[in-house]
Amino acid sequence: MPTTPAYAATSAASPLAPFSIERRDPGPREVLIDILYCGVCHSDIHQARDEWGGSIFPMVPGHEIVGRVAAAGPEVTKHAVGDVVGVGCFVDSCRHCAQCEAGEEQYCAEGMTGTYNSRERGTGAPTYGGYSTRITVNEDYVLRIPDGIPLERAAPLLCAGITTYSPLRHYGLKAGDRLGVVGLGGLGHMAVKFGKAMGAEVTMLSTSESKRQDAEELGAHAFAATRDPETFKRLRGHFDFIIDSVSAPHDYNAYLSLLKVDGTMVLLGVPDQPVPLAAGALIMQRRRLGGSLIGGIRETQEMLDFCAAHGIASDVEVIDIADINTAYERMLRGDVRYRFVIDTASLSPAS
Amino acid sequence: MPTTPAYAATSAASPLAPFSIERRDPGPREVLIDILYCGVCHSDIHQARDEWGGSIFPMVPGHEIVGRVAAAGPEVTKHAVGDVVGVGCFVDSCRHCAQCEAGEEQYCAEGMTGTYNSRERGTGAPTYGGYSTRITVNEDYVLRIPDGIPLERAAPLLCAGITTYSPLRHYGLKAGDRLGVVGLGGLGHMAVKFGKAMGAEVTMLSTSESKRQDAEELGAHAFAATRDPETFKRLRGHFDFIIDSVSAPHDYNAYLSLLKVDGTMVLLGVPDQPVPLAAGALIMQRRRLGGSLIGGIRETQEMLDFCAAHGIASDVEVIDIADINTAYERMLRGDVRYRFVIDTASLSPAS
Repeated sequence: MPTTPAYAATSAASPLAPFSIERRDPGPREVLIDILYCGVCHSDIHQARDEWGGSIFPMVPGHEIVGRVAAAGPEVTKHAVGDVVGVGCFVDSCRHCAQCEAGEEQYCAEGMTGTYNSRERGTGAPTYGGYSTRITVNEDYVLRIPDGIPLERAAPLLCAGITTYSPLRHYGLKAGDRLGVVGLGGLGHMAVKFGKAMGAEVTMLSTSESKRQDAEELGAHAFAATRDPETFKRLRGHFDFIIDSVSAPHDYNAYLSLLKVDGTMVLLGVPDQPVPLAAGALIMQRRRLGGSLIGGIRETQEMLDFCAAHGIASDVEVIDIADINTAYERMLRGDVRYRFVIDTASLSPAS
Repeated sequence: MPTTPAYAATSAASPLAPFSIERRDPGPREVLIDILYCGVCHSDIHQARDEWGGSIFPMVPGHEIVGRVAAAGPEVTKHAVGDVVGVGCFVDSCRHCAQCEAGEEQYCAEGMTGTYNSRERGTGAPTYGGYSTRITVNEDYVLRIPDGIPLERAAPLLCAGITTYSPLRHYGLKAGDRLGVVGLGGLGHMAVKFGKAMGAEVTMLSTSESKRQDAEELGAHAFAATRDPETFKRLRGHFDFIIDSVSAPHDYNAYLSLLKVDGTMVLLGVPDQPVPLAAGALIMQRRRLGGSLIGGIRETQEMLDFCAAHGIASDVEVIDIADINTAYERMLRGDVRYRFVIDTASLSPAS
């Protein structure tokens, strides 16, 4: 039972602070991972502050984990000691429902086991995430990090990466398609990179003209400021596909109007209130509105391999764990390009 | 220029009343059709009362037309004098945009020419619909009515039929799927028939328990009363596909919750106000929400042939044209099973 340094929120009102957890020795099909980096996802803030309800405290957030296998149970075949591996948003699922059998464990009929703020199947013990130096996970829920991706820039791929890659694949983005990406943040910047690598013509749709240069640097082919009403006239019926990464309430109907006949818009963000939808925006041009939630293990591996093949990684700012509360405040102001990643060496007693 | 008896609304506030229109002699590729029956669509009321704005008066409504070819221009090849034919919601389109070339003229980039309350391409003359005894239409926008469908029961197929058939095909209803049909009216009753013929297990979702017997008579495998909150618990995650034919505002999120992972709901009705949509209802189970607008000429012909092959027709109540204003009032009360159809013999001077 290795005692492991971590950072935890002890209540919804508490800042994150040093904490200690026990990690179990790996079972027959489990690996013990020494965590190297952990990305900081907006959902970490929501859950640490109990904004979605039902949070389990103390909570060790973090579900964008990259590390190295330190020990492996005797029946492990997929990973070996020394391998660089990743863990994303879930560490278990029922394994027998239609979705699990299809490799879409994120839609597990019994509910996936979250990497943190969840309960282990069987024991019911709370799960603790990647703001810590070690984690023990069943090998089936562990990803291989392929060579060639800087490890700190690989961590956010485990959530922000797969969350944007999966809908582009599932809803069928094609080479040559015109892709609009709404919102330039942790998700949006990955959607630009994936869209471009998949051969789409990518337009960044962002509130403010000040993001134009950022969008160009990310490789977007075009930029459109959504505070300018002219944008919605100029780009009416322009896109085959829109990825909407924005969680704040915004006008779905205006963005739907930018789709061609048979165009698809996929929602990734969950505004805190339902958003008025005009049926005519879907009916008159046979548009589709979909949603998508992270991705399964098989597809997450495919995404990582795609990143290695196309030289894609997240743009990150590496921080020490001691800066996590400041990082949360900066994220709430949109002041990060585009993901904070914790160097977990800063959690070790020696550092 | 055959003078043709018709019924028209002369203003948004006027009841429909006898009127006379000129129909042009057929051009080289046009046919003159003696109208036998014309279905009465809810959109006739909306447009006659200018509830959507922009109505052109005087207006002769009607876009569910079945008749017999009375004359044909010299270059007509698709239809012959004496053929039983149909005309649906549009009589022309640009013919060169991507949608027209794909046979999806209802999404014509330049706008289809509506069968009534629209303007002819070229002349700009108003179009007049099927509440009349004759109509002249380009042969490309005329359907063959296959043998075996009673003609009065074929008329509503030209709008209500294709409006429900097309989304089931386009969004991929499969044999064995669980199909929910929301709303039992002109559209809903056709969706039940098509869904059953396509091999789906059909559940009628209707507000009131009083529709149970009607649903069974139509061939629905099951019935669920949507005023009963237990319905939404019992059928949570039950359906692969939902066709929503309701135009009154209703809770999209509640119906979306009845879909399985990867399920599809298609909206056919346009409530007069946007409806709040919870993004989570799409994201958490990767559900799709789509729209669909009637269908193209090719698919409308396919639908008619499907009806003949499967013994499908609309359930109708045949009326004389003199009863049209009463019929409108009854439709607004939902008092019709399930479509009024005008016998246009009642328009002729002899009758």
